[in-house]
This record gives sequence, C-alpha cells and structure tokens, in this order.
Amino acid sequence: MRERGLLIVFSGPSGVGKGTVRAKIFESDNNFEYSVSMTTRKQRPGEVDGKDYYFRTRDEFEEMIRNGQMLEYAEYVGNYYGTPLTYVNQTLDEGKDVFLEIEVQGALQVKEKVPDGVFVFLTPPDLEELRGRLVGRGTDSAEVIASRLEKAKEEIRLMSEYDYAVVNDEVDLAAKRVKKIIEAEHYRVDRVIERYVHMIDDVKV
Amino acid sequence: MRERGLLIVFSGPSGVGKGTVRAKIFESDNNFEYSVSMTTRKQRPGEVDGKDYYFRTRDEFEEMIRNGQMLEYAEYVGNYYGTPLTYVNQTLDEGKDVFLEIEVQGALQVKEKVPDGVFVFLTPPDLEELRGRLVGRGTDSAEVIASRLEKAKEEIRLMSEYDYAVVNDEVDLAAKRVKKIIEAEHYRVDRVIERYVHMIDDVKV
Repeated sequence: MRERGLLIVFSGPSGVGKGTVRAKIFESDNNFEYSVSMTTRKQRPGEVDGKDYYFRTRDEFEEMIRNGQMLEYAEYVGNYYGTPLTYVNQTLDEGKDVFLEIEVQGALQVKEKVPDGVFVFLTPPDLEELRGRLVGRGTDSAEVIASRLEKAKEEIRLMSEYDYAVVNDEVDLAAKRVKKIIEAEHYRVDRVIERYVHMIDDVKV
Repeated sequence: MRERGLLIVFSGPSGVGKGTVRAKIFESDNNFEYSVSMTTRKQRPGEVDGKDYYFRTRDEFEEMIRNGQMLEYAEYVGNYYGTPLTYVNQTLDEGKDVFLEIEVQGALQVKEKVPDGVFVFLTPPDLEELRGRLVGRGTDSAEVIASRLEKAKEEIRLMSEYDYAVVNDEVDLAAKRVKKIIEAEHYRVDRVIERYVHMIDDVKV
C-alpha cells in the first residue's frame, strides 16, 4: 500500500507575506503540490485565475459550501476564501504531499478534520512591521488596515494551535525554514515506523 | 531570561553507524555542542580519550554512578557506556544545544528525565546490511556479532519511543537529515511561542 501524502497547512495573519513566502518555496525543487485556494475577493493586478486563486462569485462559492465541496472556508474582511476538497484528497491518496496556504480561521477547521497535518504559522517579527507591510501594499484603506491589525492580534494568539512558528524576517530564510520543517516531518517516527519494523520479522539473523 | 538549549539524543542499534554519522554532522557548521560519552570498553586504534570517549576503568565509572554524576548509563556487551551530567546541564543552561550519541538503553533513561528532548533513532536499511557492517568492522567475534544482531532487533522495536527515525543508507544523507530535524525542532510552537506572543501586548495598534 502506498503511504498517504502529508497535508501541510501554511497560515498566518493577513499581510504577513504568506503568498510571497509560498511563491519562494515553490520556486525551488520540492516534493509537494500546491493546492490553489478559491476566493470571492477581487483579482489584484498580476494575479492569474487558477494559479494564484480560483476567483469565483459569492453565489458560486456558496453553492460549493452547500454541496460539501470545501475542505475549509472562511469569510474574511467581507470575502470568502477556501480550499476545494477534491484536489486535496486525490493528491494525498496518490502519496504526494499537499501544501495549503490559507487564512487562520480556515486552518483551524482543517486541524479539526485532519489532525495529523503539519500546521505552520508564519509570524511577523512584530506588529509595527506588519502595519508597515499592509500600508506599503497600497491595496487597503486605513479602516481595512486597522481591522486587519486587530485581527492579526487575535490570530497570533492562535499560534498555540499550530505545530511550528516561522518568522518572516526575510523571505528567503522563511522559505528555507518551511522546507526544512516539511522534510523533517517525513522522518517522524509515527509516520515511518511501519516501513522499518517489518525488517525484524522479515530477516532471520 | 535566556532560553535553555535543546537536548538532542541520537541513538540506534550498535553497528548502525552512529559514530560515523555524528562525525559527519560535526564536520560542517552547526550550533550544537557534542557531549563526549564515557565508557569502560577498550580504546580502538585511532580513538582519542576525551574526544571519541572518556575511557575509564570499571571502578571509576561505578563511582560516578554511585555519586549521581551520570545522566544515563548502560551496560552493553560487558562494558559501561554513559553521559556525565555536569557538562550537559551547564551547556543547556548557557542556551546552547547539546548533542548526545548514546546507546538505546541510555536514550530511554534520558527520555524519562528529559521528555522534551529531541530523540532521533538511526536505523539500518535492513538487518542484512547491519550484519555486513558489523562483520566488516572486524572488531567483534562471531558470537558478539550474533548477540549484537539479536539486540538490534529488540532495539528497532523501541523506535516507537523516539520522535524521529533516520535511515543510514548514505552517511552524507543521514547527517543532513539529522541537521534538518534539529533546525526544524527550533521552530516548534511550544519552544518559541513565548518569544512571539509578547508582541500582542507590547504594541498599541
């Protein structure tokens, strides 16, 4: 029997740089598949439908929720974000790891359903730095930024629900840390013990 | 307050190549200190007292046991092996990681005393390969080799007590895997959360 892949859940406060770190992780060789999220938020310049996100209307999104086709979803600052279920399950069944980059609310839903996933929290070095990043992005109004920062404080408290915390001080370093965590998780005894203990009974010594 | 260092416990069946992999790990840059073990077994050609092991008589070793100066010790194929306590504690208190390369029996003693250590089991690809390695080493009689293989079977069953299992298929690869595990462990939420949650209360947003 082929071993099922690992589900890697990469999350953190809005504006911390999840997308940038994820892009850096996928620039280099790796053994995991990216699960594209679905959202009802507006497409930003340069974003590609089906690559950065699946961009959908509220009606379409809500129909998928009703049909049980979402692994997780969250409404965040007026928009839905979520992970379609089918691709994730198929890929894990093929023995490949799946990498989700999702919002904190959604990550906690996944943890309930898939407790043996690997949960990685991307944290800002501090909140002033996060504020600067949100302002610099230039896509949000002052009210939205204030709301995102309040949300970030709540979300950092939820770090305790995760397995790992990686600080996004430098994108390159943060990406390398996440890759090492994923590799190390493959050596956890509870994931590999079956592969080794058979040798005890197989061989006459 | 300075964070206490990580205690890394590297173990596995006799003959699996713990010493070789450990030497490879310490060839390259790293941020942890090696704790030299103490033994009553005979010094092999090329081994240096105080570097490979502290070589001691049975009387000296047993006095340290009586004085509570050993973190762990085990008697194995007629010889004592163990870890002097003082160096380990001082180094951890300085905030540095300590790397122990010890026998399986001793590793389980350390786990009782230091449950938040990182326990890494080095496993042979299979038992035939382990037999070949023991024979090739040329230091043990046929009887000792048979006894070591029986012991190895028992020890592989104890893999479940460890956090990670790394296969020693190639020394270079095994060493790299161990280094990644140690780095990843530094990002575990329960080890770092204190460092980050203070930001919530420190900053007015």
